Amino acid sequence: ATEEEVYQLTVRLLEAIHSGDYGLYAQLSDVKLTAFEPEAQGILVQGLEFHRFYLEAAKATRRRQGSVTSPGQHTFHPYSTIENPQVRILASGSAAVILYNRLTMSLSADTGKPTTHRYQETRIWEKHGTTWKQVHFHRSS
Amino acid sequence: ATEEEVYQLTVRLLEAIHSGDYGLYAQLSDVKLTAFEPEAQGILVQGLEFHRFYLEAAKATRRRQGSVTSPGQHTFHPYSTIENPQVRILASGSAAVILYNRLTMSLSADTGKPTTHRYQETRIWEKHGTTWKQVHFHRSS
Amino acid sequence: ATEEEVYQLTVRLLEAIHSGDYGLYAQLSDVKLTAFEPEAQGILVQGLEFHRFYLEAAKATRRRQGSVTSPGQHTFHPYSTIENPQVRILASGSAAVILYNRLTMSLSADTGKPTTHRYQETRIWEKHGTTWKQVHFHRSS
Amino acid sequence: ATEEEVYQLTVRLLEAIHSGDYGLYAQLSDVKLTAFEPEAQGILVQGLEFHRFYLEAAKATRRRQGSVTSPGQHTFHPYSTIENPQVRILASGSAAVILYNRLTMSLSADTGKPTTHRYQETRIWEKHGTTWKQVHFHRSS
Amino acid sequence: ATEEEVYQLTVRLLEAIHSGDYGLYAQLSDVKLTAFEPEAQGILVQGLEFHRFYLEAAKATRRRQGSVTSPGQHTFHPYSTIENPQVRILASGSAAVILYNRLTMSLSADTGKPTTHRYQETRIWEKHGTTWKQVHFHRSS
Amino acid sequence: ATEEEVYQLTVRLLEAIHSGDYGLYAQLSDVKLTAFEPEAQGILVQGLEFHRFYLEAAKATRRRQGSVTSPGQHTFHPYSTIENPQVRILASGSAAVILYNRLTMSLSADTGKPTTHRYQETRIWEKHGTTWKQVHFHRSS
Amino acid sequence: ATEEEVYQLTVRLLEAIHSGDYGLYAQLSDVKLTAFEPEAQGILVQGLEFHRFYLEAAKATRRRQGSVTSPGQHTFHPYSTIENPQVRILASGSAAVILYNRLTMSLSADTGKPTTHRYQETRIWEKHGTTWKQVHFHRSS
Amino acid sequence: ATEEEVYQLTVRLLEAIHSGDYGLYAQLSDVKLTAFEPEAQGILVQGLEFHRFYLEAAKATRRRQGSVTSPGQHTFHPYSTIENPQVRILASGSAAVILYNRLTMSLSADTGKPTTHRYQETRIWEKHGTTWKQVHFHRSS
Amino acid sequence: ATEEEVYQLTVRLLEAIHSGDYGLYAQLSDVKLTAFEPEAQGILVQGLEFHRFYLEAAKATRRRQGSVTSPGQHTFHPYSTIENPQVRILASGSAAVILYNRLTMSLSADTGKPTTHRYQETRIWEKHGTTWKQVHFHRSS
Amino acid sequence: ATEEEVYQLTVRLLEAIHSGDYGLYAQLSDVKLTAFEPEAQGILVQGLEFHRFYLEAAKATRRRQGSVTSPGQHTFHPYSTIENPQVRILASGSAAVILYNRLTMSLSADTGKPTTHRYQETRIWEKHGTTWKQVHFHRSS
Amino acid sequence: ATEEEVYQLTVRLLEAIHSGDYGLYAQLSDVKLTAFEPEAQGILVQGLEFHRFYLEAAKATRRRQGSVTSPGQHTFHPYSTIENPQVRILASGSAAVILYNRLTMSLSADTGKPTTHRYQETRIWEKHGTTWKQVHFHRSS
Amino acid sequence: ATEEEVYQLTVRLLEAIHSGDYGLYAQLSDVKLTAFEPEAQGILVQGLEFHRFYLEAAKATRRRQGSVTSPGQHTFHPYSTIENPQVRILASGSAAVILYNRLTMSLSADTGKPTTHRYQETRIWEKHGTTWKQVHFHRSS
Repeated sequence: ATEEEVYQLTVRLLEAIHSGDYGLYAQLSDVKLTAFEPEAQGILVQGLEFHRFYLEAAKATRRRQGSVTSPGQHTFHPYSTIENPQVRILASGSAAVILYNRLTMSLSADTGKPTTHRYQETRIWEKHGTTWKQVHFHRSS
Repeated sequence: ATEEEVYQLTVRLLEAIHSGDYGLYAQLSDVKLTAFEPEAQGILVQGLEFHRFYLEAAKATRRRQGSVTSPGQHTFHPYSTIENPQVRILASGSAAVILYNRLTMSLSADTGKPTTHRYQETRIWEKHGTTWKQVHFHRSS
Repeated sequence: ATEEEVYQLTVRLLEAIHSGDYGLYAQLSDVKLTAFEPEAQGILVQGLEFHRFYLEAAKATRRRQGSVTSPGQHTFHPYSTIENPQVRILASGSAAVILYNRLTMSLSADTGKPTTHRYQETRIWEKHGTTWKQVHFHRSS
Repeated sequence: ATEEEVYQLTVRLLEAIHSGDYGLYAQLSDVKLTAFEPEAQGILVQGLEFHRFYLEAAKATRRRQGSVTSPGQHTFHPYSTIENPQVRILASGSAAVILYNRLTMSLSADTGKPTTHRYQETRIWEKHGTTWKQVHFHRSS
Repeated sequence: ATEEEVYQLTVRLLEAIHSGDYGLYAQLSDVKLTAFEPEAQGILVQGLEFHRFYLEAAKATRRRQGSVTSPGQHTFHPYSTIENPQVRILASGSAAVILYNRLTMSLSADTGKPTTHRYQETRIWEKHGTTWKQVHFHRSS
Repeated sequence: ATEEEVYQLTVRLLEAIHSGDYGLYAQLSDVKLTAFEPEAQGILVQGLEFHRFYLEAAKATRRRQGSVTSPGQHTFHPYSTIENPQVRILASGSAAVILYNRLTMSLSADTGKPTTHRYQETRIWEKHGTTWKQVHFHRSS
Repeated sequence: ATEEEVYQLTVRLLEAIHSGDYGLYAQLSDVKLTAFEPEAQGILVQGLEFHRFYLEAAKATRRRQGSVTSPGQHTFHPYSTIENPQVRILASGSAAVILYNRLTMSLSADTGKPTTHRYQETRIWEKHGTTWKQVHFHRSS
Repeated sequence: ATEEEVYQLTVRLLEAIHSGDYGLYAQLSDVKLTAFEPEAQGILVQGLEFHRFYLEAAKATRRRQGSVTSPGQHTFHPYSTIENPQVRILASGSAAVILYNRLTMSLSADTGKPTTHRYQETRIWEKHGTTWKQVHFHRSS
Repeated sequence: ATEEEVYQLTVRLLEAIHSGDYGLYAQLSDVKLTAFEPEAQGILVQGLEFHRFYLEAAKATRRRQGSVTSPGQHTFHPYSTIENPQVRILASGSAAVILYNRLTMSLSADTGKPTTHRYQETRIWEKHGTTWKQVHFHRSS
Repeated sequence: ATEEEVYQLTVRLLEAIHSGDYGLYAQLSDVKLTAFEPEAQGILVQGLEFHRFYLEAAKATRRRQGSVTSPGQHTFHPYSTIENPQVRILASGSAAVILYNRLTMSLSADTGKPTTHRYQETRIWEKHGTTWKQVHFHRSS
Repeated sequence: ATEEEVYQLTVRLLEAIHSGDYGLYAQLSDVKLTAFEPEAQGILVQGLEFHRFYLEAAKATRRRQGSVTSPGQHTFHPYSTIENPQVRILASGSAAVILYNRLTMSLSADTGKPTTHRYQETRIWEKHGTTWKQVHFHRSS
Repeated sequence: ATEEEVYQLTVRLLEAIHSGDYGLYAQLSDVKLTAFEPEAQGILVQGLEFHRFYLEAAKATRRRQGSVTSPGQHTFHPYSTIENPQVRILASGSAAVILYNRLTMSLSADTGKPTTHRYQETRIWEKHGTTWKQVHFHRSS
């Protein structure tokens, strides 16, 4: 595995999250995915069910927003950028961890103003056969 | 009683709560059910009347939501997952206690954004004749 | 007077309050009723005029709610339950005091979610001729 | 002057305030009326102009409310009660001071729920010729 | 029973509370005394044990304060005044209820400045044989 | 009574308050003095007992402060100035009301820094025989 | 098992907690004790190690307090009372659950004033051989 | 590598942190250790220098506490327990990630009361030659 | 210049502000007007451009309000009164400073209730040729 | 480079930001632009993508506002003024830094009232060939 | 009068304030000095008495600080700098106004850390005979 | 100028700040140094005087701390680390800007616990003759 490959995997995963593409998300994730994230307030989230709820909500919001913006107008879907990424290839290259700051830009629900959220993320990838799967991630804000 | 059986009973009870199915809830509960929960601010809730109010409200919200979401669109009804469950079969197996963290996912009323609430629950089941009944539960957030 | 009789009087009084039935409320109350309650911020409320304003408001809300809920749907009027009641018959039984926690369930005005308020109430009943009248109550939250 | 007369004058003044009847208010007030009240944050209000703004606003709200409530329905105009009044006739009875707690009941603008505000008021009346005029008042909440 | 007698009983009780004189307090109280007070956050306090803790603490503070103030200097022990009292003799005069605002003056623990707390109190007295006993009180702030 | 005379009476009263001179305070006050002030949170204070507690506390603080400041050093006792005073002579001059902003300067208890508090005061004086007495005052901050 | 027996066991356990008597506490507790309590913010506490830290701290505070209070003076050790207890005997009497409100009185660390905390507790007892052991408890405030 | 081995390594690391044993900490850590932790507010901490400051402070506090507690008395050094640990051996076993909730018990600096903090930790270990080194950790509270 | 003339100039200037009459405002102001006001959070505002934005906004609000209030109804445009004004004629009368409290009355945007804001203003006027111009003002709230 | 030239460049850049003219913004900016700004909460923003999101949002808001304001009415687009600017030409004049306070005026989203925000900005310009480019800016509020 | 002369006068005045030199302060001030400053919460301060209290407090603090700092050690007396000053000579030069931001550096009372406060000040000087006197100032923070 | 040289200059400057070495600081700084920093709340700090106050305070604290820590004990002087630095050489290498996150570790004044503050800093260096001088810096937290 090369650092660039791990970086690109992570970029595709963030796009899946924002577009609410649960199919792609599942494809990039181990079924026994574990996660620490602020939403779960200390409880380790296990499996994909929890993330599915958030992705479906993102897709519904995106479809609703799309329908109200008149054609030709710029639709502002939330998106994220990866800042100061560091990749560490583990154990002969069959596993890797990427750690980065994540900036998520979106229009705030009530004022319509652009807002930015900053997170720290640690995401662990492992090679299952020939495909890479995220097996654990830890987000804090 | 087996631990799995007690776990499944609890899963069915949480579904009854979220779908507002008071019939099923009553069937799974002792008439003299007692409960400590944040809503009652220290007062022991006795009987089923209090819980009925909450279940009927859940059913009304679910019906209202159903009517507004256009066909084919994903309707986001609140649901709960049980995390880190532990079951303790008491004495000769005719009673049991299950303790777990509960994550409840729902769309927040004002911003429409997915939100998650975390609770701790202790739920005590007892075999009345051939059917299991919850006799007491204690929730804290 | 029996404890049960005082308890039932109090139940009917709470129903009168929630349904906004000022007629019944006045019938159960001494004209020179006195009350300490959080709304009056330390000032002793004297007479029935103050309570009439609250009961009329409850009736108006109930009528307005009734008109908007389509037929067959469950209308959620606020109601109260009496928890851990204690009745003390005073002197030769021609007066009594009931003290209890009161749980009031209602749909919150802005989010539509079911909410619960907890109060402590001390209510003093006295026999005027053959009918019982509340002469003083003290509520705190 | 008798205590009762001063009490009645004050009752009529409060009614003028709530119904927005600036004519009656001016008739009961010295042109060089002075007042300390929370709204003016420490500044002594002099003359009637300031109070006129508040009375006209009350009248406009009352007219607007009146137009929206369907006939037969109870319209909830704000009103005040005078609690624990004490009247002190000064020297030869051509001046008097009344001090009381004032409870003002009204429907809160956003939730429609009945709410109560408590104030302390000191109001000084003086006989100008044959008519009584309020010359100064001090309100605190 | 006369209103004045009930008023004097209450004055003596408040003095017992401030001087931490548990003996006198017990003498004036029914063993099965019940109380709603802010400290117990909704829970009905039953018996005298709870109040004993508070009185002993008052006595200890008073003794400690006494020892540090040099002779001749004014020692500021907390004390209460009863404002706007109303007494209602119940039925045949063998029971009575007194309701009043209570102002408690004391030096604040950290700044040493005089401070005042305002409470509402409803206190029910009953004649047991020849002596009056408080059987229930309800305090709110 | 002249406006200047009422103004001077008020200046002397404020000096009595700050130096804790209860003798002078009582001499200038009617025994049935009434007062609305923030400390009493809505309750009308009646009689001199309440004010005595505050004056004694002021005297004790002043004596304690005096003893710690080495000779020749400037001791900072709290003092008040009367700003924008207006005097209204009532009823042929045998009663008067003075209304003013009051600035009270003192060293704050914990940081030792000079601080200023602003109040509004309405103070009513009446001639009892040949001596002027304050009969009522209303303070708000 | 009788309800009274379960109640007494719980009283002894609370005494062990306040006196910091870890020996007695361990004797009354299953080694695989589980607990939900506010201190652990959602995490299920397993085993006795966590509780030992709190009991040792209580014992140290008690010894330190004891050494500073001069002989004959009342030392105020924290203590708890059990209010509105309900006991439910489970499964032919070899297990039981007790649910109650708990009032804990103590002197606050900084102001030295008596304070009270209110909790809800669900405590499950099971008979291991001839001795009763608490196997799980759930506290919320 | 076995799960138990990774668990024990983590226990030893937490002990090093609490006892301020920087020697052991460095021995168990890669020189190019990276970390996300609340203290650094979003900035990735790189190298050991940052952690050394915290460990030295812990050692100084421990030495200072030790000197003040009289012999025989229980000294309360902060300590942590690992709850709900999950270990995932990566690829061929030469790397592993452990994720757990961490409860840290300590006496609060100002009130001396025992307090508990809850964290989520993700810690990645890698085998460098024959010794295991932590290469990255992510803590959130 | 006479004090009255300076006072009238200031009254006209406040009317220009509330009616959004930028023409009149500019006519009464030096092009190099300087101002300290809370909106600019410490930065000295120079020139007229900043004030123009606020005046145009006032005019737009006034026109919008005007169009919605049905004829004959009282329209509540914000207005200010000048309290306790003091004018100091500087040098040979070709400059003057006026200092006053300003009370601004308006209907609050969300609740429609009348509200009052209090400011302190120092405004410096200078005679340029035959016309008076404000050259600097300092507002604080 | 002259100070005036750098000042004018900065004015044009601020206009591009408020009108949402991404074309002009990009033309005036180095592709590897870096920025510290409150929105990114400590993370260095690199490249133009982040700023494009904000400019597009400004353009959308401006177009939406334009469509709702009836012709002839003053549309209030946000704009900024540069206060107390200082320009420092670096070395041989092929780079410069401008530092200033920035006041941004706009109508607040919910109340429609004019509001002002104050920022400090440091903006570094460098000559790439014959055109000036901003290479870094630092904003704080 | 030249701008420099007014600037220097203001510098000397600020030094008088920080060193608590009331003599110099009075010498530079009109006896009928007026002032708006945050401490007086809206009330116009008239005369020198109010400022004397603050200057004496500054002198006492300075003397106390002086005595505790061992010789040779740097004593940190508060001081102010004048930023972005603008002077406007009024009419024929016999009056002037200076407006500036004022930064006051001092050691915070409790943490001993250096802290900075920012103010806006408008100060009006007038030539009385041959000496300049401040006649009015307006401070806001 | 090389990037490493600019980085080392900045490291030496931060050491000067923490050790309070004003001599070294001045040597590394232009006399007309300008700075935006949170302490000055929007005002541009000009010259070295302001920074001298902070450095002298740091030196005094360091000397005081040094004297109290017994020999051999680790003294915790505050220090900073530079994270994610980026250096941009400007013009022909005679100027440079360095931008970085700054982590400052210190013992908190009241709890003695180690704490960390995160800042963003933009620092501009310019070659004056043969020595590098910081000419401007912008800090935000």
